[in-house]
Amino acid sequence: MTFSVTILGSNSALPTSERHPTAQVLNVSERFFLIDCGEGTQMQLRKYHIKFAKINHIFISHLHGDHLFGLIGLISTFGLLGRKTPLNVYAHPDLENLMLPHLSYFCADLPFEVRFIHTSNKERQIVFEDQKVIVETIPLKHRISTVGYIFTEKTGMPNIRKECILKYNLSIAEIASIKKGSDLKLSDGIIIPNSELIKPPKRPRSYAFCSDTKYFKSLANELKDVQLLYHESTFLDSDKELAKKTTHSTSKQAALIAKDAGAQRLIIGHFSSRYNNLSAFIDEAREIFENTDLAIEGAVFNIDHS
Amino acid sequence: MTFSVTILGSNSALPTSERHPTAQVLNVSERFFLIDCGEGTQMQLRKYHIKFAKINHIFISHLHGDHLFGLIGLISTFGLLGRKTPLNVYAHPDLENLMLPHLSYFCADLPFEVRFIHTSNKERQIVFEDQKVIVETIPLKHRISTVGYIFTEKTGMPNIRKECILKYNLSIAEIASIKKGSDLKLSDGIIIPNSELIKPPKRPRSYAFCSDTKYFKSLANELKDVQLLYHESTFLDSDKELAKKTTHSTSKQAALIAKDAGAQRLIIGHFSSRYNNLSAFIDEAREIFENTDLAIEGAVFNIDHS
Repeated sequence: MTFSVTILGSNSALPTSERHPTAQVLNVSERFFLIDCGEGTQMQLRKYHIKFAKINHIFISHLHGDHLFGLIGLISTFGLLGRKTPLNVYAHPDLENLMLPHLSYFCADLPFEVRFIHTSNKERQIVFEDQKVIVETIPLKHRISTVGYIFTEKTGMPNIRKECILKYNLSIAEIASIKKGSDLKLSDGIIIPNSELIKPPKRPRSYAFCSDTKYFKSLANELKDVQLLYHESTFLDSDKELAKKTTHSTSKQAALIAKDAGAQRLIIGHFSSRYNNLSAFIDEAREIFENTDLAIEGAVFNIDHS
Repeated sequence: MTFSVTILGSNSALPTSERHPTAQVLNVSERFFLIDCGEGTQMQLRKYHIKFAKINHIFISHLHGDHLFGLIGLISTFGLLGRKTPLNVYAHPDLENLMLPHLSYFCADLPFEVRFIHTSNKERQIVFEDQKVIVETIPLKHRISTVGYIFTEKTGMPNIRKECILKYNLSIAEIASIKKGSDLKLSDGIIIPNSELIKPPKRPRSYAFCSDTKYFKSLANELKDVQLLYHESTFLDSDKELAKKTTHSTSKQAALIAKDAGAQRLIIGHFSSRYNNLSAFIDEAREIFENTDLAIEGAVFNIDHS
């Protein structure tokens, strides 16, 4: 099952011609979860061949323009394409109030429903759940109310060991029962315990998105053992005072969070446009957390079962 | 004096990864007049090295999203860059009402004033005038209230013929007086008429922007002898019924307007994303009006004195 993230934009508030503001898509079995929606997201989605019709959920971290100015254009385009499926937008409650007059004016007669699901950064909350994935908010600390999102694959049913199917000539009914946890009772009365019949399910994969936030050590507790972590790194450590003042993080701080959380891999992004060359970001992070990569536009990060 | 247009985007409502929605800049002596502001305009301005600080006037043709969704992001960026100069936005009155809550929320404490100047498509109106250029609206016919804009260079002072300066040993005061229309009285009482002393000023240059509009023949009267005309051509003539239905024009119709107006040169744009190859647009227009070009992103059209 696919579980991968594509970076559509990773710059901070001031976009450049080559670096778009924040937007990413998480692909879970060819369903696309859009995370933030900076200006130009719809063009980036086209550029990287993400199918518009497979985006049903958009998760907005906070109400700064560089994370959402692309939303109205994307919704408008969905309408022009004749979309029928409801679109779910997860965001701070103010977004609904701000968007409704614009939707009425610029997107009158939309052929689909836009549902606003309100988030809060008071505590961690489940905001979406289906058979395959669960999405929770993570309270972050920024100038305004901000949440990160953690996407966790659901644990599937355990698999029956193939050799057991042959050895005990298992029926479909017996297999279903074993998958649910039953032991196997043979005709001679011998009991084969469930643990000998099954392989445990694969460890669920997870992806956490944390932007924008100042550094706070306890964030790592919310991200325990996450496989792939995106954490903002707006500044370099040499500008850590500026990071503190603007409630952003440095590359070093992002790496510390990844290390403390026991993450397997880190992506850093949301770079300030003051830096032309991003290599210093990667060098700084890797001193603390080796398995770090830059959120370069178009990069795809596959999350494998570990 | 520079008088040129740079195309930033020329697609219709559905942008593609290679074709942005409508935006252009007219450069009049290194002052930049932005015309429409589709999503991604600020990235396109950076890409084509247009200096943000030299944009003080933004002219919006009508309130469809593909002509203005980039406005909030651009204003936000102006604020982050510390702009102090007021920004003048010319648009239908509804835009002010729609934008104010978003400006208050997303661009609080802007260090400059955003002034909304209301346009009307009831009649042709002067909306801006300074020493070098005059900008008038042109009523267009679209589904909603829409105006085009015509930018006309002001006639400068006439130039004194160089040979006269030497021949009559003209003083600075005499030159200034002759430029204002005076004759020259020589010491022996002979009068040299003004017309013998001056070269008439160059013909003023002009640029007209017409998007979006259905075809209506009388539009050509508003564009009489314009040097450079941008006219929308959303569809090919084979889709003229669709053009009529959606109140847009075809490439052929744009060419007819240019021909009837006696324009010198035509640029066509606002192409529907249904067409992958734009060469048919140019072929169709050139059958009627030879001096036609496509509004390709990044193209610069210089308007020379004729």
